[in-house]
Amino acid sequence: MTESPPPLSFNDFQRLIREMYFEKDLARGIDGTFMWLMEEVGELAAVLREGTPAEQAAEFADVLAWLTTIANVAGVDLAAALHEKYGAGCPGCGQLVCTCDDAGKP
Amino acid sequence: MTESPPPLSFNDFQRLIREMYFEKDLARGIDGTFMWLMEEVGELAAVLREGTPAEQAAEFADVLAWLTTIANVAGVDLAAALHEKYGAGCPGCGQLVCTCDDAGKP
Repeated sequence: MTESPPPLSFNDFQRLIREMYFEKDLARGIDGTFMWLMEEVGELAAVLREGTPAEQAAEFADVLAWLTTIANVAGVDLAAALHEKYGAGCPGCGQLVCTCDDAGKP
Repeated sequence: MTESPPPLSFNDFQRLIREMYFEKDLARGIDGTFMWLMEEVGELAAVLREGTPAEQAAEFADVLAWLTTIANVAGVDLAAALHEKYGAGCPGCGQLVCTCDDAGKP
């Protein structure tokens, strides 16, 4: 891990990605943007197998950026979505430390 | 979009997911966890085609949660990774509003 920067919020990052890419994202649309996300997911898989920590960090960042850019086009607020789904504990068992069956999801 | 909750930082969310799932994630390992991520990515694709806004928000949350859980197992600090890759503008052109060739990435 590298040294942590000041806290970065999902709202701030989603706004940053919107400012950087929204016009292009909107023109490309969700389907075309999803293809880029998939390419980055593949790159993440590759570096998880044999990449350096810095390469792994960069690919996580890219996947997050493409996921965020799709959320912008779809009009989804990521912070609100996370709060709704995970803000009250594990969606499966409702506990802060998950007690779901190990074979189950997650 | 639903009403925004108080700012949620990547550090806070990564810590929350660690508290909820780290023991299970570590036991399952990166490969098995990546399979769950892929399932969620597929569900996201499906709801982007024909889901409600609430369903789309929930699937974005799930993809973020599984991506974060893999980052925990790999020892990657997501906030630091984002800051490193996107903190100084578009990694392609270096501009806050991307001016990369439209045919290029991103």
